[in-house]
Amino acid sequence: MTLITSSKNELIKSLRKLTRKKNREEQQRYLLEGVHLVREAIKAQQKLIMLLATTDFQQVDWLPTDVPTYWLTPEVAQALGTTVTTQGIFAVLPLPVTTVPQTYTGTWLLLDGVQDPGNIGTMVRTADAAGLSGVVLGQGSADLYSAKVLRSMQGSHLHIPIYQGELTTWLQAFKAAQVPIFGSELNPAAVAFHQIPAQKNFALIMGNEGNGMQAALLAQTDQNLYIPIQGRAESLNVAIAAGILLFQLKD
Amino acid sequence: MTLITSSKNELIKSLRKLTRKKNREEQQRYLLEGVHLVREAIKAQQKLIMLLATTDFQQVDWLPTDVPTYWLTPEVAQALGTTVTTQGIFAVLPLPVTTVPQTYTGTWLLLDGVQDPGNIGTMVRTADAAGLSGVVLGQGSADLYSAKVLRSMQGSHLHIPIYQGELTTWLQAFKAAQVPIFGSELNPAAVAFHQIPAQKNFALIMGNEGNGMQAALLAQTDQNLYIPIQGRAESLNVAIAAGILLFQLKD
Repeated sequence: MTLITSSKNELIKSLRKLTRKKNREEQQRYLLEGVHLVREAIKAQQKLIMLLATTDFQQVDWLPTDVPTYWLTPEVAQALGTTVTTQGIFAVLPLPVTTVPQTYTGTWLLLDGVQDPGNIGTMVRTADAAGLSGVVLGQGSADLYSAKVLRSMQGSHLHIPIYQGELTTWLQAFKAAQVPIFGSELNPAAVAFHQIPAQKNFALIMGNEGNGMQAALLAQTDQNLYIPIQGRAESLNVAIAAGILLFQLKD
Repeated sequence: MTLITSSKNELIKSLRKLTRKKNREEQQRYLLEGVHLVREAIKAQQKLIMLLATTDFQQVDWLPTDVPTYWLTPEVAQALGTTVTTQGIFAVLPLPVTTVPQTYTGTWLLLDGVQDPGNIGTMVRTADAAGLSGVVLGQGSADLYSAKVLRSMQGSHLHIPIYQGELTTWLQAFKAAQVPIFGSELNPAAVAFHQIPAQKNFALIMGNEGNGMQAALLAQTDQNLYIPIQGRAESLNVAIAAGILLFQLKD
C-alpha cells in the first residue's frame, strides 16, 4: 500500500497540472473527482489509469482491485481537489481518442461556441437523458475535460459519444446522410419549436451564450427554431433552450 | 462628485457585507453588479438607493441623474465586486417587501428545497421567459439575493413577483382557487409530461437536486409529472426539467 503524505509528491504535482487543457493534452489523461463520478467511471467499465483516495475509502466494497491505487492523507486530497471540500477520491482516465462516427444518421446536438463550462456539461447530460446519438463541440467551445464541465456532465461523457471538430464539415456529413439540420435563433421570424414533430433523425445546433449561432451556420440549416418568450426575460439560458428543443424533437 | 479611493471606506465596508444574507436583512438592501443587471434595474424603474461605478462610466448616457452616485477607483471596484474581473458598476436596491398575491390563479413555479444558486436563478429566468404569474421559494431553498442567484436570474427578479414561504400553505391557497397542482418526480409510474395539455392555471413544484420533492408535498398534488429518460443519464438537471415542464404546461 502506497500512502502519499506530501502534496509536493511528484505524482500529485503532475496530476495537479491536469486542471489545464494544455497539460491534459500533453499527458493524454484527465482527472475525475468525487464519489459519484468515480463510481460512474467504474460502472461504465472505463479504463482507469489509476485511483487515488483517502484511507477512508479502504473500507468501501466498490473499488476495483486491478487498478493501481494510491492512498492520500486528507491534506494531499484537498491539494489535489478542485472543490472547497473535496470528497477525497479521484480517478485518472486516458483522454478519449477522437474518432468519426460509423453513421451520421440518428439524433445529434452540436454546440457552436458555447463558452460556459456549466452550460456545456448540462447540455451533454441533457443529450444523454434524451437518448441522443452524440454531441459535437465546434471550435471555440470550452474544453470538455475541465473540472467544471465534468461536474455538470455527471458522468454522461461516459455514456454518449462526444466529438470535437469543425461544424461546417459535420453539417456536410449530416446533409449527405439526409439528416434534417435545425438551428436555434432568438428570432420570432424563425419557426416556433412546437410546430416541429418528434423525429428519428436530426442535428440541432445551439449557439454562444451572448451572440447565438454564427450567421454562416444559420444559413446552412434546413430550419431555424425559436422558443416563444411570453414574459419580459430577453432570452432563455442556452442549456434550458437545448432541453426544451431536444425533448420536443427527439422521438 | 464623490470619488472613493480606499476599500477601507465605511460605505464600501458596509456594502461588502451584503454578500451575507444576515447582513442583507439587517441593512434591508442588496447589491446588483455588472452592466446588464444595473441597466435592467434602471429599465425596470426600480427604486435605487445608490449607484457606484468606476469613473469610466461618467461617459455613458444611461445613468440616472437623480440617484446618489459614488465614483470608485478600479481597485475599490474590484474589492466590492464578486467576480474575478469586475465590470466596475453596482447598484444598491432595497430588499423587496414580502407581500401576498392578489390572486392565486394564473401560472406558478414553486421551489421545494432547491439548493444550487445557479439552478434557482435559472429557474426564475425561465419562469419569466415562460410568462408565469410568479415564483414561490419554499423554506430550505437558497437565498434569492446572493451574487450567484442574481447573476443567473439576469434581472428576471425585477420582472416577475417572487415570494418566500411555507409551500403547504401556498398549496392550500392554490387548491382553494381551483388551480391544478403538479408535482415533479423521477418515477416512471408518474404521468409522462407530454400527456398534459397546456393550461391557463397551474402550480408546478420542482424539488431538491439530490432528493427531489418532499414526500409530504408529493402527496398534496393533483398529478405528478415525469420526464421520460431515454439514455443512460440518471436524471436531468432540475432547471432543465423545469424548463421542459414549463414550456409544455404554459398556455
